[in-house]
Amino acid sequence: MDVYISGVGMTKFGRSKEPLQKMMAEAASSALKEAQLERVDAIYMGVMNVEEFVGDSNFATLLADTLGLTGIPSTRVETASSTGAGAFEAAFYAVASGHMKHVLVLAGEKMTHLPTAKTTRILSEVIDRSERRYGATMPALAAMIAQKYAREFNLSLLKLEDILSQVAIKNHSNGCFNPYAQFRKIITKEDYLKSQMVAYPLRLYDCAPITDGASAIILTSQPTPIKVSGIGHATDTAAVRHRASFTSFNSTKEAAQKAYIMSQLNPSDIQWAEVHDAFTLFEIIGTEDLGFFPPGNGWKALEEGITHLRGRLPINPSGGLKARGHPVGASGLAQLVEIIYQLRGEAGRERQLERAEIGLAQSIGGLGNNNLVTILERADRKRIVGKGWSPDYHPEINVSKKMSTPPPEGIGILETFTTLYATPEGFRSPLALGFVKTEGGEMVLACNPDYRSPKELKMGKKVYLKTREGLYVFEKFTFWNRLKHWFKGSSKSP
Amino acid sequence: MDVYISGVGMTKFGRSKEPLQKMMAEAASSALKEAQLERVDAIYMGVMNVEEFVGDSNFATLLADTLGLTGIPSTRVETASSTGAGAFEAAFYAVASGHMKHVLVLAGEKMTHLPTAKTTRILSEVIDRSERRYGATMPALAAMIAQKYAREFNLSLLKLEDILSQVAIKNHSNGCFNPYAQFRKIITKEDYLKSQMVAYPLRLYDCAPITDGASAIILTSQPTPIKVSGIGHATDTAAVRHRASFTSFNSTKEAAQKAYIMSQLNPSDIQWAEVHDAFTLFEIIGTEDLGFFPPGNGWKALEEGITHLRGRLPINPSGGLKARGHPVGASGLAQLVEIIYQLRGEAGRERQLERAEIGLAQSIGGLGNNNLVTILERADRKRIVGKGWSPDYHPEINVSKKMSTPPPEGIGILETFTTLYATPEGFRSPLALGFVKTEGGEMVLACNPDYRSPKELKMGKKVYLKTREGLYVFEKFTFWNRLKHWFKGSSKSP
Repeated sequence: MDVYISGVGMTKFGRSKEPLQKMMAEAASSALKEAQLERVDAIYMGVMNVEEFVGDSNFATLLADTLGLTGIPSTRVETASSTGAGAFEAAFYAVASGHMKHVLVLAGEKMTHLPTAKTTRILSEVIDRSERRYGATMPALAAMIAQKYAREFNLSLLKLEDILSQVAIKNHSNGCFNPYAQFRKIITKEDYLKSQMVAYPLRLYDCAPITDGASAIILTSQPTPIKVSGIGHATDTAAVRHRASFTSFNSTKEAAQKAYIMSQLNPSDIQWAEVHDAFTLFEIIGTEDLGFFPPGNGWKALEEGITHLRGRLPINPSGGLKARGHPVGASGLAQLVEIIYQLRGEAGRERQLERAEIGLAQSIGGLGNNNLVTILERADRKRIVGKGWSPDYHPEINVSKKMSTPPPEGIGILETFTTLYATPEGFRSPLALGFVKTEGGEMVLACNPDYRSPKELKMGKKVYLKTREGLYVFEKFTFWNRLKHWFKGSSKSP
Repeated sequence: MDVYISGVGMTKFGRSKEPLQKMMAEAASSALKEAQLERVDAIYMGVMNVEEFVGDSNFATLLADTLGLTGIPSTRVETASSTGAGAFEAAFYAVASGHMKHVLVLAGEKMTHLPTAKTTRILSEVIDRSERRYGATMPALAAMIAQKYAREFNLSLLKLEDILSQVAIKNHSNGCFNPYAQFRKIITKEDYLKSQMVAYPLRLYDCAPITDGASAIILTSQPTPIKVSGIGHATDTAAVRHRASFTSFNSTKEAAQKAYIMSQLNPSDIQWAEVHDAFTLFEIIGTEDLGFFPPGNGWKALEEGITHLRGRLPINPSGGLKARGHPVGASGLAQLVEIIYQLRGEAGRERQLERAEIGLAQSIGGLGNNNLVTILERADRKRIVGKGWSPDYHPEINVSKKMSTPPPEGIGILETFTTLYATPEGFRSPLALGFVKTEGGEMVLACNPDYRSPKELKMGKKVYLKTREGLYVFEKFTFWNRLKHWFKGSSKSP
């Protein structure tokens, strides 16, 4: 059964004094009003970590009660930072099954009331325990991915910096035209360069902010002008080090392939996209993973203006997570609300796209390991018959190798690294972290409490891997280390 | 599209040293093996509060990775203590939509590693904040419901105690025959009476235990001998005091009605049921809410042996939550695994029912406010055509009245009360709690730090309601109070 959209709603994103359930009720009320409904058949609601952010559990019930909608199913759905898209997917299947006619999808998060170090710690819990225990945060892992991207595609760090700043500048510029955005001000390259370093080479302006907000969509089996044409969803390994590549996300590729197959569309059919720019580079990688541009070419499209608001393939006309804000549970659904505003021609004079008949949203859960791709289109759009989906890439699924014994101490190659300044609760700042490939070909995460400045480290160089208190530590590779290694052999492992 | 079962799996419930993801993987492996599948199209997994019990987030990803099943959708579903049934429902719609062929449903929880006061605090977060802040726990609210039940149906407290002990004795006796049960020993009335008071009049043996465990089911669109015939799901008010009745759960009634309508069945068609006996009385209330027995008659059916293992309508042949154990996220799915074992005739000589063609499971989320009812049947069962569903009750939906001003101090009636001995972290024990109806007809929860013994309080008696530090406090109604009330008028409210 086909699934359509009959109403949407959103709160302004930013800092709110309202309790989360009230913000979500506000978004829901707008959506219900648009759909001219007083009751629905079910509620699917997404919150990422209401237990720790707010201290509540059983939130699906509280929300139904707040809405005055007791007596119907109310289900909480969670897929880390893609939760809003995950709730939309679950609701989609409920309507597509024919068992439900009208379903309310709601998503939200309240985050700004906590100290930043606590928020950082809570957000870090989406990271695999084996990497989190080193103090690795989302920005730290994203920073190491950024360094690796620069190395893989031969970009100087100055060039990388320039590209990343362009993403931030573009999305802030788009955000100016979005009445729901947290930030509605232009930023310059100078502002970008002045912003504090969070995890080298990522600055504050490379990271989506901490935000409160909620969004809502009504799905229906009754035809309306806007139709859900495809949904794809896929996971990747929990630990980043178990992946074959650091510079693309298989979970996006797999999810995109599923969405393209369901909708019988190709990347070239997509007119614009909302891409999960929790970190500036993730927008670039996203446009490559979605098949819009070849690997390593996403930044060129940005430079050429293709992904600008008036470009051939606008990316994040809403301002993205960067400028609209990133209430982690809500973002995946807010992207779809934005797509719907565009499809309806209601995005406002400055933001409205000329061609807005088919849009795509990509949402990332965790560090790129629970991603969704959703395609919405105008039901009256003319389809070129027989075109269909012809895949031009075949993602290879990563499977975590379960190591029987952890790699021993010894020589390794520093694949990528970061110096983390905004550490989570309980970790000293700054903290140097790096992925090291051992001589046995295994990838480990390691820290180095001695190196303070990122200038002292270099990717691709030999380091010496030691263990200390159950953690891997990497040190500069010296003659003395080599000698020790030679004599003692490889024995210890954490 | 019809939905069938092709495999099930379960860990032994109890205390486990394994990490939660390993327990869940164990259950999943059995289910996949039974279904002869190596991959599935999606994973729906239920955990209630993995954030606080285990300290992990993004658990759907971790689980997919642990199973070696990256690359497919993995979605976490949560509906408080009915989470396992909620995950089953979401997966049901995914298969029923025709978009998924084989779906793995997984549910689990790990709880035994934490101190009891902390577990109690975490479990209490499912309770509405307005009632939780008094120190109300799940046993405290259940105890007040038990007292109210006794009063409403004219049972002496001695009689109530006898009925409750019979539920515990029956379910422990059934649990003896269940290899997956946490407790496999007969208990006597003497044992019951010796068990410590948790929240007067509920003893330790009235409460389901703290448990680790996991369960798994594979749903498929390919016909197998076992079919999902109906699912219903409904919420009720977050706060207990906003409900018209304390002695039945509208969420069960609504969910049951939906399940009966979907399956075109009547309560009289059901041959046996797994009923959510988190507290002994909840089994009695459940059998009434499900339409098996009229209100106030569930305990008679128990006394007459109707609900015994060899009775006409066996309830909880598995041992129920009481004896099988209650890993909060897993229980709702474990009930369905048990129904499937019975439908297949695989429940073992002692436990296997003679008539096992159509079984029902009822799962309670929170304090009776996010409940699911699921009906499974043998696909080859002969249906009496044209019988269908003829409702004999019409549940009235509770809607929380949003009070503009809280009720003032003054005279009220003590509707029900408990003395709580096992208080959550941060509350002194014992703690007297009561629901008080004000002269304006509004229900409030109040505490009384002075009364220690439940013997000093009586339901239906006048009390004096005061406010202290933003909380309602009730006191014995005295001439002095009446005088104060007369002179001062009603002014303060929290």
